Amino acid sequence: MHAFDGKVSDCIDACLDCHKICLGLAMTHCLETGGAHIAPQHFRMMIDCATVCATAADFMLHKSEFHREMCGVCAKVCRACADDCAKLDGMQECVAACRKCADACAAISR
Amino acid sequence: MHAFDGKVSDCIDACLDCHKICLGLAMTHCLETGGAHIAPQHFRMMIDCATVCATAADFMLHKSEFHREMCGVCAKVCRACADDCAKLDGMQECVAACRKCADACAAISR
Amino acid sequence: MHAFDGKVSDCIDACLDCHKICLGLAMTHCLETGGAHIAPQHFRMMIDCATVCATAADFMLHKSEFHREMCGVCAKVCRACADDCAKLDGMQECVAACRKCADACAAISR
Amino acid sequence: MHAFDGKVSDCIDACLDCHKICLGLAMTHCLETGGAHIAPQHFRMMIDCATVCATAADFMLHKSEFHREMCGVCAKVCRACADDCAKLDGMQECVAACRKCADACAAISR
Repeated sequence: MHAFDGKVSDCIDACLDCHKICLGLAMTHCLETGGAHIAPQHFRMMIDCATVCATAADFMLHKSEFHREMCGVCAKVCRACADDCAKLDGMQECVAACRKCADACAAISR
Repeated sequence: MHAFDGKVSDCIDACLDCHKICLGLAMTHCLETGGAHIAPQHFRMMIDCATVCATAADFMLHKSEFHREMCGVCAKVCRACADDCAKLDGMQECVAACRKCADACAAISR
Repeated sequence: MHAFDGKVSDCIDACLDCHKICLGLAMTHCLETGGAHIAPQHFRMMIDCATVCATAADFMLHKSEFHREMCGVCAKVCRACADDCAKLDGMQECVAACRKCADACAAISR
Repeated sequence: MHAFDGKVSDCIDACLDCHKICLGLAMTHCLETGGAHIAPQHFRMMIDCATVCATAADFMLHKSEFHREMCGVCAKVCRACADDCAKLDGMQECVAACRKCADACAAISR
């Protein structure tokens, strides 16, 4: 779509990818592995991250006048989720997707 | 549910109600009336408001550690949407739902 | 809103209420209780039910020409979720919300 | 993610891409162009399609036991949206994304 400039278009893709990785890993790897992976604090952050990434993508797709504010919250949640996942096994793909999305959202929210 | 305190529980209900009113009116009254009701700036704000209200409700339902930040964005979008709708015909129900939700979210985000 | 007839309006409310109960209990009671409450099959059904209820409500709010099909899937998921929750402790509120929503969606999908 | 087989993984990507194209074009090209692009029947189908694509992706990411039913509804909405968009100017990208997603979902739902 030519409706969005390059930085926004890249951020939409990073958000949709991070939504996919966080929700997919939470509902497969985390649920099936148990232990620290389903500690309420960790699991909630995974689902929060999946949710805010989808919403931030939608706000950019809406050309919302509030997309910077939503990307600011998204950057904060993604950063925290990356740090949390880095402490656990088998979550490297999630750490990478969250960090990439946090950087893209931070660049938009400024 | 007893999992949530009274202020949060009331805010969840205000968010779900505002989601219902904004999305329902946008996709019926606004689309069918046309004119100023589907001006891109107005229509986007209606859809933004429906989206952020659903997400803020979900963050509270998750017991998210980031629910204050999300409620802060929700309060801002709802306030703007109420002001915008107040200029148009037939949107009194939306003005009321947005103001109620903005107040409830602002009380949470503090 | 006067845009929706009584049966659809009641079904929208039943879907939003079931979304709230399923997501809220999954992310608090189920995660905090553990054991059978976070068995992957059960927990996934809770999240599926929360998701499809929100989507069915949105399809009705859109006046979608496909709302019957979506309500049909919603009725099926809600019925299964009610039966699953009935086997576990502390889920009576969820059983009731899922059964009410299943009945309302089944009446729409016919 | 290795959690999903190739056919499901491709379908998740097709759904997320179709969500992006439908929501992005509806809220930019359709709203800004007006006329037939914001006829209620057409615009609702664009938003329905964006919504069901996101939900079908989420059901697959949940490893939901109901993902076939949701992909069946998604295939039907995407097919109708592609046919509708094919009658309008500037919607070729949407036609292509909807057809690809319809085929991927139909293959899953069988």
